[in-house]
Amino acid sequence: MINFEQFKSVRGLTEELSENLETEDFVIQASEEVSPTKWHLAHTTWFFETFVLKELDPEYSEFHPDFNFLFNSYYNGKGDRTQRDHRGLMTRPTVREVFAYRDHVNRGVERFFQKTEINQKIHDLMVLGLNHEQQHQELLLTDLKYNLSLNPLFPVVLDCNEYKVQDAEGWVKMTEGLYEIGFEGDGFSYDNEHGRHKVFLEPFEISKSLVTNREFLEFMEAGGYEDHNFWHSEGWDWLNKHEFDKPLYWHKQNDQFFYYTLNGLKPIEWDAPVAHISFYEAAAYAAWKGCRLPTEFEWEAASDQFDWGQRWEWTSSAYLPYPRYAKAPGAIGEYNGKFMVNQMVLRGASIATSPNHSRKTYRNFFSTPSRWQFSGIRLAK
Amino acid sequence: MINFEQFKSVRGLTEELSENLETEDFVIQASEEVSPTKWHLAHTTWFFETFVLKELDPEYSEFHPDFNFLFNSYYNGKGDRTQRDHRGLMTRPTVREVFAYRDHVNRGVERFFQKTEINQKIHDLMVLGLNHEQQHQELLLTDLKYNLSLNPLFPVVLDCNEYKVQDAEGWVKMTEGLYEIGFEGDGFSYDNEHGRHKVFLEPFEISKSLVTNREFLEFMEAGGYEDHNFWHSEGWDWLNKHEFDKPLYWHKQNDQFFYYTLNGLKPIEWDAPVAHISFYEAAAYAAWKGCRLPTEFEWEAASDQFDWGQRWEWTSSAYLPYPRYAKAPGAIGEYNGKFMVNQMVLRGASIATSPNHSRKTYRNFFSTPSRWQFSGIRLAK
Amino acid sequence: MINFEQFKSVRGLTEELSENLETEDFVIQASEEVSPTKWHLAHTTWFFETFVLKELDPEYSEFHPDFNFLFNSYYNGKGDRTQRDHRGLMTRPTVREVFAYRDHVNRGVERFFQKTEINQKIHDLMVLGLNHEQQHQELLLTDLKYNLSLNPLFPVVLDCNEYKVQDAEGWVKMTEGLYEIGFEGDGFSYDNEHGRHKVFLEPFEISKSLVTNREFLEFMEAGGYEDHNFWHSEGWDWLNKHEFDKPLYWHKQNDQFFYYTLNGLKPIEWDAPVAHISFYEAAAYAAWKGCRLPTEFEWEAASDQFDWGQRWEWTSSAYLPYPRYAKAPGAIGEYNGKFMVNQMVLRGASIATSPNHSRKTYRNFFSTPSRWQFSGIRLAK
Amino acid sequence: MINFEQFKSVRGLTEELSENLETEDFVIQASEEVSPTKWHLAHTTWFFETFVLKELDPEYSEFHPDFNFLFNSYYNGKGDRTQRDHRGLMTRPTVREVFAYRDHVNRGVERFFQKTEINQKIHDLMVLGLNHEQQHQELLLTDLKYNLSLNPLFPVVLDCNEYKVQDAEGWVKMTEGLYEIGFEGDGFSYDNEHGRHKVFLEPFEISKSLVTNREFLEFMEAGGYEDHNFWHSEGWDWLNKHEFDKPLYWHKQNDQFFYYTLNGLKPIEWDAPVAHISFYEAAAYAAWKGCRLPTEFEWEAASDQFDWGQRWEWTSSAYLPYPRYAKAPGAIGEYNGKFMVNQMVLRGASIATSPNHSRKTYRNFFSTPSRWQFSGIRLAK
Repeated sequence: MINFEQFKSVRGLTEELSENLETEDFVIQASEEVSPTKWHLAHTTWFFETFVLKELDPEYSEFHPDFNFLFNSYYNGKGDRTQRDHRGLMTRPTVREVFAYRDHVNRGVERFFQKTEINQKIHDLMVLGLNHEQQHQELLLTDLKYNLSLNPLFPVVLDCNEYKVQDAEGWVKMTEGLYEIGFEGDGFSYDNEHGRHKVFLEPFEISKSLVTNREFLEFMEAGGYEDHNFWHSEGWDWLNKHEFDKPLYWHKQNDQFFYYTLNGLKPIEWDAPVAHISFYEAAAYAAWKGCRLPTEFEWEAASDQFDWGQRWEWTSSAYLPYPRYAKAPGAIGEYNGKFMVNQMVLRGASIATSPNHSRKTYRNFFSTPSRWQFSGIRLAK
Repeated sequence: MINFEQFKSVRGLTEELSENLETEDFVIQASEEVSPTKWHLAHTTWFFETFVLKELDPEYSEFHPDFNFLFNSYYNGKGDRTQRDHRGLMTRPTVREVFAYRDHVNRGVERFFQKTEINQKIHDLMVLGLNHEQQHQELLLTDLKYNLSLNPLFPVVLDCNEYKVQDAEGWVKMTEGLYEIGFEGDGFSYDNEHGRHKVFLEPFEISKSLVTNREFLEFMEAGGYEDHNFWHSEGWDWLNKHEFDKPLYWHKQNDQFFYYTLNGLKPIEWDAPVAHISFYEAAAYAAWKGCRLPTEFEWEAASDQFDWGQRWEWTSSAYLPYPRYAKAPGAIGEYNGKFMVNQMVLRGASIATSPNHSRKTYRNFFSTPSRWQFSGIRLAK
Repeated sequence: MINFEQFKSVRGLTEELSENLETEDFVIQASEEVSPTKWHLAHTTWFFETFVLKELDPEYSEFHPDFNFLFNSYYNGKGDRTQRDHRGLMTRPTVREVFAYRDHVNRGVERFFQKTEINQKIHDLMVLGLNHEQQHQELLLTDLKYNLSLNPLFPVVLDCNEYKVQDAEGWVKMTEGLYEIGFEGDGFSYDNEHGRHKVFLEPFEISKSLVTNREFLEFMEAGGYEDHNFWHSEGWDWLNKHEFDKPLYWHKQNDQFFYYTLNGLKPIEWDAPVAHISFYEAAAYAAWKGCRLPTEFEWEAASDQFDWGQRWEWTSSAYLPYPRYAKAPGAIGEYNGKFMVNQMVLRGASIATSPNHSRKTYRNFFSTPSRWQFSGIRLAK
Repeated sequence: MINFEQFKSVRGLTEELSENLETEDFVIQASEEVSPTKWHLAHTTWFFETFVLKELDPEYSEFHPDFNFLFNSYYNGKGDRTQRDHRGLMTRPTVREVFAYRDHVNRGVERFFQKTEINQKIHDLMVLGLNHEQQHQELLLTDLKYNLSLNPLFPVVLDCNEYKVQDAEGWVKMTEGLYEIGFEGDGFSYDNEHGRHKVFLEPFEISKSLVTNREFLEFMEAGGYEDHNFWHSEGWDWLNKHEFDKPLYWHKQNDQFFYYTLNGLKPIEWDAPVAHISFYEAAAYAAWKGCRLPTEFEWEAASDQFDWGQRWEWTSSAYLPYPRYAKAPGAIGEYNGKFMVNQMVLRGASIATSPNHSRKTYRNFFSTPSRWQFSGIRLAK
């Protein structure tokens, strides 16, 4: 069963990630799909307060009656909530107060652990809450990157290397057959991975390495962004509407390419895997190469034979329920099922994924135009 | 090999469908996703002129040099084209001229048949052209219905019964196993059905009948449109944005429900299958019933054991390529593959589908909010 | 007092203007600010039916109960009405039926005149109705021009010369003083011209001629569309959003300029007055010339000393009520007052203005981005 | 000639206004038309740096090379600038750095004054800069109010009384005649007040007091927001689009009205002048009362006979140039003229106007839907 140290360790990491920020950096929301750092800090806390402390500890005293409204995200079952695009307007509670909220709830959980025998139900809720917090750790970083990227001063806020060179090469060959797909075992997993089931796969090959910045540049220089033949119809419209011709965060200055990272504006590391591309771009690159993206089933079946973890890898699979998928009752059940339409599955993990928060059955998902995650490309054929 | 009579017969049906229209009815386009009747008449003709006569008959003389620009649809490979939302602004060429265009091309094809030995390539192109025309026959009707439906006079333009009572009931039980999916045989089929392949299915049941208007009304009266628990997140947003609370074309007058049909405004036939619902509504209805929509593979595997053909049936499968799918080279290859993203598969056929234009492997597809097709619901569990 | 022949003559002109149209041309509406020809034909008729026949002739039998809903325009006081941007979707009533409606109402008015003594009230209503119809004659032409202009076939529908060379030149000098402004006399006038009142003017000069296409081309070639210094702030935003760099309807083909007219695509007549420019363009041109636009008071005070009537001339006056302006009670009172905000006054008349429908006190008005009228420029300093 | 103490005093007030804010409050921008507090602090400083120190003091060392880009507002002539709706995304420079920028420039100006003989040109620039800063002091407050008003916690940031009871009553009667309008004298004034000129006015009466919250409530309770007869056509559309039925910042809780102020949420002071209404609402109220708004000329002519200064008072005059208006050369000339279209003049001053920054010839202007200023109503007839 889970113990308080594990809780403290995950919660502590969230705070570490934002320790170089100025107060102002915590506040803003540069588009509707990202959230302010402050909101992530508070919302993950709200999860423990709402689903654990307020539900299970009669002695717990709520930090502030308005915080449910302010920091609920998409749980319709848990009352009203701030409009998503107004998250960046909430100057109050202040950053200091949000850290006080975290402390209050952390101490509440500590007291709760001291006096309570942790049963399976509590364990499951706490583990869900920590996995939820880990998911938000990654979003905290990717949202922060987007929020700061519009600033012409290109702020430096984290000493990390987003672009590491890989050393794998070549292709994995997989034979035709029935493969078992989906989570099995004892650890934590989300409901969307459940329902382990058989999938029949035809023979295929899958690359051992991710597409690099250098390879993606070849696509750009070959006119990949100008030839409709490589693109889905709605990808082509998206491209032309936004006049995109390179990955998100790339800048061309005096004929040289740079990209913005949380460590500031940097020259491109050409041998590192490309990042921040949409599904449309991933699919177009694959078409240009005469290949395709793997299905999520192919990816899972072959994943032990290649390195992964630097990029969320777009698959050609739509995000749909597995057989026997059933959503949990109540607000917790809103977690995954209601997003199973018009999104694509990404497999793997990224350099921003929290430690111990990845596994080969994990199903991440984003809409096809999304670019602000560390998303990349692995080819199949 | 195909002969001219077959060509003439399909082409003639297109004209029959619009024979009760006033000239004005041919012109308008009430939303970007529908097209004017006149445009369908001309665009199907443009297909034969462009891909058959201009390519293969050196003696053919083009009807009008501007018509390629005016009546190309989405074939980027075949030059520029009218903005999709401007199709309803083309008062010229007139309806009379468009019929003259049809005659000109029909006669061109007749002459071409007289002097040419029909080889496989010509046969394939002609059959593709006729299937293309049959697809547009259905769109001609559904677009026309939408175009006229906004008129408070509710015009009557076709003597047909869109709502027929079914007599099937009960469930088909299917066992676990590997099923063969995809087209086989000699007749015509689209490239998106190709690549016959094995799919492993778990045991399932599928309804022998479609959900009726009466059943859908129960959902409405039980508050189905007001409870977010039944809806996908983006379906819920769609619903609230448009303030929808009933299928498209339903009107409530003095506490009684009516619907608009091509035969005018009619009282609801409660035992007929519901139509004109979006994927969101289909999925919400299924969730409310404690069931789900079938996958397209389940549908195809079980289809011989139930009646179908009144409604395009939403499946829970996203529209994705089959294994070994490859798009044809050139403009013809733009037909299907580039739409394989963010759409759902519908199986079956509808009362507006042309005769001999349905088969159990046919993969129709629309975006999730689409309601103007004769789309309905078959449950699985 | 007015007689039936006068009525018949004005009504007949409306029909003459559309006699070269194809049925299809009557139907469409290419933007929200223009209306279909069919709608103008019906709406002007609705005016006489609603305000004269249904109000004053108990024996009159209404043509169709739905037509009030279909052909009301902006008279909130007279019941519900078709959404403005749905006017182009009303294929029914057909063009033939609309002409039958005109006949029915014309005969109704004829009978009404035969049996009724025309008193002042009836006279005033009839004269208002005919002036209303004359206003719509001009709109019928300008809307038709816009509707057809998007067609790459550039239809020819009227044998008229929109661009006539002027022969005036030089400046009128006016002295400081109190001038009387506003309508006086016995003929018809709108309420917005009433309240004749004194306005003090400083000395000014006003051009005897309108700015020509040649002069406007000089502005274009001098970079007038690229230098923000000549533009109002919102004009500059408008310009950049739409990427405008020439008057509406101008086309450049092989380095030569043409414009679309109701008589088809024509080479520019360089010495004729420029047309189809917005207020922003008129003001920018004037600024570039080191001049300004006249106020509507200056225009009226000096108007007897120059030729006018080819173009509606943008003034620098906002459209505001004269002193003692009071709107008439009831629906008729909605005619003018409620538009007196965020519009600019245009004085004069255009080549599309109906005969006998212009006078020097007439106050036309359009919003600042409007270009589809025959609007032009006269400079002052 | 101006001295450094005057400069210091105005600059100091700007800082006082924001002294109760949390760091987070300085950052946000809740709509495109408002700006962050931080931006006002920096932009007013940029004015002195750009137009005084960088132009006139060769020894001055620029604070930061990026600040011209970041804090230019609408001076196209002074280089590129941050997109207006991105002002709230600039977390860097931080609030602390912006205050350092203010200090740097203040010290620069101090040194400049010490070593420079203040001539007329410098005097004029400095006075313009201080008046510019005073304008931004008012905007700082009104923007801040809007920014914080969307927070359900209703933050308290300033101890001031926005709603003071007036004691005037009755009407001023003015006789017909020629009145002199526009600035005269020695003090500071903007170019838009210049060109003192004669205006002929008919006899009129103007109220000695502003419309109160109580009177405005009567309009609301009489159905003023539901009757189109009182509204301009575009005001009626605006109303229905936004579903407005009360002034900005009013909240109804348990059948009682409150309003948000910079001093927190407060019950309505019914006898104080109504504030935060658009031109549309002001004009509709006047129409409902059977009165009208005064012209800006009537206002100026009568202003000595009534109290003013609590509210910016909507007039019925469009914001247009006075005779002989000419804009100054260069970037300074962009100040006023380019906004002279589609805005209405407001006269007077408000409780947020800086001391010594009001005079009876002052011409303020806003677009007709604007509500976030302390705008109110004075009737005329």
